[in-house]
Amino acid sequence: MTIVLGGNQYGKAETHVVRISRSGARHEVKDLNVSVALAGDFADTHIRGDNSKVVPTDTQKNTVFAFARDGIGEIEDFGIRLARHFVNEFASVYRARVDIEEQPWQRIHDQAFMQAGSEKRLATVTSTDDGVWVVAGIGDLVLMKSGGSEFHGYIRDRFTTLPETTDRILATAVEARWRYAGTDVDWRTSFDQVRRLLLDTFANHHSLSLQQTLYAMGEAVLEARPEVAEIRMTMPNKHHFVVDMTPFGMANENEVFYAADRPYGLIEGALTRDDAPEPGMAW
Amino acid sequence: MTIVLGGNQYGKAETHVVRISRSGARHEVKDLNVSVALAGDFADTHIRGDNSKVVPTDTQKNTVFAFARDGIGEIEDFGIRLARHFVNEFASVYRARVDIEEQPWQRIHDQAFMQAGSEKRLATVTSTDDGVWVVAGIGDLVLMKSGGSEFHGYIRDRFTTLPETTDRILATAVEARWRYAGTDVDWRTSFDQVRRLLLDTFANHHSLSLQQTLYAMGEAVLEARPEVAEIRMTMPNKHHFVVDMTPFGMANENEVFYAADRPYGLIEGALTRDDAPEPGMAW
Amino acid sequence: MTIVLGGNQYGKAETHVVRISRSGARHEVKDLNVSVALAGDFADTHIRGDNSKVVPTDTQKNTVFAFARDGIGEIEDFGIRLARHFVNEFASVYRARVDIEEQPWQRIHDQAFMQAGSEKRLATVTSTDDGVWVVAGIGDLVLMKSGGSEFHGYIRDRFTTLPETTDRILATAVEARWRYAGTDVDWRTSFDQVRRLLLDTFANHHSLSLQQTLYAMGEAVLEARPEVAEIRMTMPNKHHFVVDMTPFGMANENEVFYAADRPYGLIEGALTRDDAPEPGMAW
Amino acid sequence: MTIVLGGNQYGKAETHVVRISRSGARHEVKDLNVSVALAGDFADTHIRGDNSKVVPTDTQKNTVFAFARDGIGEIEDFGIRLARHFVNEFASVYRARVDIEEQPWQRIHDQAFMQAGSEKRLATVTSTDDGVWVVAGIGDLVLMKSGGSEFHGYIRDRFTTLPETTDRILATAVEARWRYAGTDVDWRTSFDQVRRLLLDTFANHHSLSLQQTLYAMGEAVLEARPEVAEIRMTMPNKHHFVVDMTPFGMANENEVFYAADRPYGLIEGALTRDDAPEPGMAW
Repeated sequence: MTIVLGGNQYGKAETHVVRISRSGARHEVKDLNVSVALAGDFADTHIRGDNSKVVPTDTQKNTVFAFARDGIGEIEDFGIRLARHFVNEFASVYRARVDIEEQPWQRIHDQAFMQAGSEKRLATVTSTDDGVWVVAGIGDLVLMKSGGSEFHGYIRDRFTTLPETTDRILATAVEARWRYAGTDVDWRTSFDQVRRLLLDTFANHHSLSLQQTLYAMGEAVLEARPEVAEIRMTMPNKHHFVVDMTPFGMANENEVFYAADRPYGLIEGALTRDDAPEPGMAW
Repeated sequence: MTIVLGGNQYGKAETHVVRISRSGARHEVKDLNVSVALAGDFADTHIRGDNSKVVPTDTQKNTVFAFARDGIGEIEDFGIRLARHFVNEFASVYRARVDIEEQPWQRIHDQAFMQAGSEKRLATVTSTDDGVWVVAGIGDLVLMKSGGSEFHGYIRDRFTTLPETTDRILATAVEARWRYAGTDVDWRTSFDQVRRLLLDTFANHHSLSLQQTLYAMGEAVLEARPEVAEIRMTMPNKHHFVVDMTPFGMANENEVFYAADRPYGLIEGALTRDDAPEPGMAW
Repeated sequence: MTIVLGGNQYGKAETHVVRISRSGARHEVKDLNVSVALAGDFADTHIRGDNSKVVPTDTQKNTVFAFARDGIGEIEDFGIRLARHFVNEFASVYRARVDIEEQPWQRIHDQAFMQAGSEKRLATVTSTDDGVWVVAGIGDLVLMKSGGSEFHGYIRDRFTTLPETTDRILATAVEARWRYAGTDVDWRTSFDQVRRLLLDTFANHHSLSLQQTLYAMGEAVLEARPEVAEIRMTMPNKHHFVVDMTPFGMANENEVFYAADRPYGLIEGALTRDDAPEPGMAW
Repeated sequence: MTIVLGGNQYGKAETHVVRISRSGARHEVKDLNVSVALAGDFADTHIRGDNSKVVPTDTQKNTVFAFARDGIGEIEDFGIRLARHFVNEFASVYRARVDIEEQPWQRIHDQAFMQAGSEKRLATVTSTDDGVWVVAGIGDLVLMKSGGSEFHGYIRDRFTTLPETTDRILATAVEARWRYAGTDVDWRTSFDQVRRLLLDTFANHHSLSLQQTLYAMGEAVLEARPEVAEIRMTMPNKHHFVVDMTPFGMANENEVFYAADRPYGLIEGALTRDDAPEPGMAW
């Protein structure tokens, strides 16, 4: 029996960099949380503590800051520049993955900003000598439908107590990630359009299950955005239970709900095209 | 030596109630996190486990749901109705305090909504037989100034290493709570105006210290809103440090910052009028 | 009408300092989260941005590190040294409050340690020219009783649905803070004994309400520890609901519980002695 | 172009069940957080909202409670019973994965318990018609070495500023998950022994890099426990920086450290045997 080193990677996680750009009195702010992970020829540090092929995670952090110095632009581009740097610069690095979470800020003045919400813009860029893969995304997009949502017709067994309903609150926190077919993309426009399609479909689609809503949202994106090869979504079902007011002698016609924290449903699904390029190392 | 029961209160914390109002196809949503705390004649349960004067916290929760049934309106009014109920209904309850945190939702459709951000609207209502006190507030209002902020001229001792600066990022998460002089107030308008004054002053005020910014924000509110008797603010200084790029042979003219989590400055201050009514049991 | 600056303080919060002491091969670790808050003659910075009386929060952080250099000892002593320093050194500082949270570590080797749990040891020291006040405490002490807990005999109204019970789970996360009558105290012994009394009483006391348990715990401390003048406790009621299995055709004799997160009961109470010294600025 | 439903699963996450077992006066407590995820023939609910093959997540939750009724035992066994149930009972379910996190409690009385710490025991059981795979684990095991840790000899480039060190604090929060070769295992003994090996190796191994420590910990497990086929570990490097006290005119011989939150290093690695059975659907 021989012990074998399997999959491994290492890097600096959650470097929180804020970049201010000044063109005259009007400032722009970019607020990123950047995580780097490198894979490659690192058996020596694992097995013998020989670090001669190791790029310290502290250096990775410094590199993020230094690259921010030259301007960030769209996070997909920033991720590509960083990921390629680690692969090109260091022979021991076979694969670099750069994960970026952008916190949007809303302007309230030329030089003052308000945090725009929980919603985050996401990008994951993976680079090797053989290519670069870009996955964009949106996280913590908290949505609620107060109408147009049903759930019935499901399997019943001896443990089933859930009442069927033709009118329920549907609430979720969308995390969507979509893989681009290539890198010749207008990242900003594509992000804005995908976001709009997700929101519009959630709002307008009549839901018979959260799975159906998830599928419809992904389908809308794939139908309208040819640059997107695949989309993966995670949508918790944040349960809102109708409060039973019969003990108080009161009716409650789907007006007052108790919003529960745990447990919650968790729906995960991917949609792709039959002619999409292979995912390679994108995920 | 005799042991004495001192200050005490109890209640149900964080009842998360969501209320949907339907006028035809267009829905309204109110999303509240309600905490109730009762004080009064509760020595018997402490000392002997005699609960005959205790209103169970479970009943308090049910009461929140039942009152939501009849419509919520502005959270200050909802708090007043709830707080008065507990004092009026139960002889053992001397003081009821109702603490409400409202999560705003942004409409994206007649029956669909998006969570509008981290910002919360707050109200704390305290009621006794002698009166009712209303404190409104705003929480988790995350703000940043990329210009117009200096910090210098402070005391130096042997532990001082902070460089003086005439240009720093000023970032904070405002929690402001203001006490009303009475209850004959248009809560919604007053809240909207106070919020606007806080934002405008933060954005436009040239800051020599976070304390000065806090004071200016409070002053603007007290000057413009006669219904407000006092305002208390807590403003962490969420430090953004300029990254030193001289080791990389690069300049960094206040463009790239490292946003730190801990430690952070914490600035707390109150402003009032010399002719304001006494706070009573407001806080 | 004149606007008046009311209560205010500022400081550096959550300086996370770890101190290793080496006596030969055997190391000791102290892991503290220290928050400093200063009050005094700070109107000038609020009103005019004049910082000439301000001790920067960055200097406060450095001072925490520098004082840790000379050894920490018990956190009450460390807090006293720090609080006195700020009051003695700076004429503008009238009151210094130092809040310390100690994370205990459990030894697994001469130079290796394991985090011992969520439980924290707490101290809050307040100093002015007139004296020093010490409050010690324990936080996040998560406890559960699976027997010996009842709740019945409470007020019933039209909103009451809670069934009475003579056998329930009682679970809580104790935060206890106790004020010492003076500073001539063996802090470590006193802390250990108070902690033991709290645990023993929680475990052995037959509970008719969480209020009664809280009172009994405080009473045990005040009876046995003359150095303690007052104790304040906050104890959430972390509800464990019996799962109704009758729809499955199964009995559930208080064996299977659903542990809920929100809402929760919140019980707060203080106990003191009739001959205790005044609290002064302790709290 | 045709749109295709890709990988998908759904289930109830984080059902928090507490099970009390009574043998006379002495109680036992099991505290589990259980997440279920089902995959199978669910295209109809995604594409058409037809739920006739869907087991509601509410029913999954009820099933967890009902199965807890008959006793939990070791979490690996509980997971196997649950996962097999979903696969065997429902033709549409091809794969069931049950993820369990056990919160340990420490006895302080026959019927009273104290939460033993942040550390969690983990199990992930995956079942299909073709077999069952068991992964056990430990999470949030927070460890620190104050000696016996070096880091030097790494690659230097123009962004490298990290000083080399032969004496640093090494702190981490271990998450380890190990895959069993089969199911004929004494789960409790195996868990206890793996945990002991991880702790002992962390404590006694002289570390030249966190990667080397991770590898040594995994190697110790694979060498001593033949029932373990593979082990995967995630170990953040929770940085402790030596505070520079030269500006204060003080030395700091690796005694006072600033414990940073973000960014942090993140080291991930797997070890297996060359003769280990294929992982199948274990992960």
